Amino acid sequence: MNKTELIQQIQLKKSFLCLGLDPDLTKIPKHILEKNDDSIFLFNKEIIDATASYCVAYKPNTAFYEAYGIKGLQSLEKTILYLNKNYPNHFLIADAKRGDIGNTSTMYAKAFFESFNCHAITIAPYMGSDSVKPFLEFKNKWAIVLGLTSNTGSADFQQLYLNEKELYATVIETCAKWGTHDNMMFVVGATKAELLTKIRAIIPNHFLLVPGVGAQGGSLQDVCKYGLTKDIGLLINSSRGIIYASSGTDFAEKAAEEAKKIADEMSEILKG
Amino acid sequence: MNKTELIQQIQLKKSFLCLGLDPDLTKIPKHILEKNDDSIFLFNKEIIDATASYCVAYKPNTAFYEAYGIKGLQSLEKTILYLNKNYPNHFLIADAKRGDIGNTSTMYAKAFFESFNCHAITIAPYMGSDSVKPFLEFKNKWAIVLGLTSNTGSADFQQLYLNEKELYATVIETCAKWGTHDNMMFVVGATKAELLTKIRAIIPNHFLLVPGVGAQGGSLQDVCKYGLTKDIGLLINSSRGIIYASSGTDFAEKAAEEAKKIADEMSEILKG
Repeated sequence: MNKTELIQQIQLKKSFLCLGLDPDLTKIPKHILEKNDDSIFLFNKEIIDATASYCVAYKPNTAFYEAYGIKGLQSLEKTILYLNKNYPNHFLIADAKRGDIGNTSTMYAKAFFESFNCHAITIAPYMGSDSVKPFLEFKNKWAIVLGLTSNTGSADFQQLYLNEKELYATVIETCAKWGTHDNMMFVVGATKAELLTKIRAIIPNHFLLVPGVGAQGGSLQDVCKYGLTKDIGLLINSSRGIIYASSGTDFAEKAAEEAKKIADEMSEILKG
Repeated sequence: MNKTELIQQIQLKKSFLCLGLDPDLTKIPKHILEKNDDSIFLFNKEIIDATASYCVAYKPNTAFYEAYGIKGLQSLEKTILYLNKNYPNHFLIADAKRGDIGNTSTMYAKAFFESFNCHAITIAPYMGSDSVKPFLEFKNKWAIVLGLTSNTGSADFQQLYLNEKELYATVIETCAKWGTHDNMMFVVGATKAELLTKIRAIIPNHFLLVPGVGAQGGSLQDVCKYGLTKDIGLLINSSRGIIYASSGTDFAEKAAEEAKKIADEMSEILKG
């Protein structure tokens, strides 16, 4: 999916919500666990069907599938095939945070862009250019590089100063030169919304994938205030706050309600 | 496997060689591709059987399995089960370069320490403390944090200065405080051997996992000169230089020869 198509989807739905699909067997409703051999897929499927009209992107985090071994990865594959077939206009992000030396990053790119047919993958930038560039060589695919993350650990290295600039600002500035705003996005946590002004000064036109709204405490209004561009330029992710809104038989319905609340707020913001 | 057991294995074999299992279908010998439905596993199995007496560790890089989807991951699982069963005294490293916010890193730790039963996993440190610490909470398991990597891209961020210290030195110094030399190692590329003196001043007792000898041009002698400790403290990795030493029917035999060459050199160094 290219940038124009993504913007069209956002305008059509008046939503720039990305839904994180992070299935956790300790949180999935009991009736789902009891009735199906592949409860992760069934859980995802019901969540997807209930929320598809309120979001433009889905973001499975690979950790939550790998934790259950091959069986978990088969659930991931089924989830992706289901999205590819039934919701081809939803932007599909593998939240995998990969990155390795050149020949190995190429293998990861093949894994997620070809074997798993996702539109985008999140990338850890620590290993530098040859670890990021292989992901930029696939047409209509995206590298989403970690810039400033939403967690407390982001203070340990990302926010340290190199000369007069924080590491995350250097990472964003440098990585942005390797790609374009048509094949690269950055992760910027909603918990650091006030820093978005500084980031927008470096990358005025790149899309940002923004986790941390909801369970982690970030504010949608603040992120939009500092981060919106004329092309919207934001994908705001929520995971736990939506998919675990209820642990009862009404989980999909409650997830839809939560997703709709955010989408409605986004629609209001886009009007303004 | 704990540190004492690892050192015992090194002393027993007079080798601190780690063999990278990075199967690439474009490089695996034709007769293996033709004769078996799971050629990746068969290739690994023959390589392992031929080299086990010359190395103390195996390091499958997950990218080379993920690139082939579920089938590739099944080959990885079979390879790990084969090692667990037949070579339980070999240290087993998942070269996965994972790292995410706390609850997600816990899922990755479960994936590699429990579902895949490895002794260690490589970790990308960019996201800081809560992305690394969950890997330290498993008994006799190891987090191997990227310090200074062997690739050219390591110049982009790792070698930049924060105040008077390079980023990699800050990363190593900070991460070392989160664990001990009984549950944490660091990746330091052989291509930067002269910097090992600086690194040993920060972490005199940690094991280092050292890639870059062989195909990437690093020197075993230099790494040992600057990096050896009284407990050895090094695991030197070679992958392509050994496993693709021949593309003929003699590939396992040639791999053994290459592994033996390095092991013999290591044995000489340990005598000195």
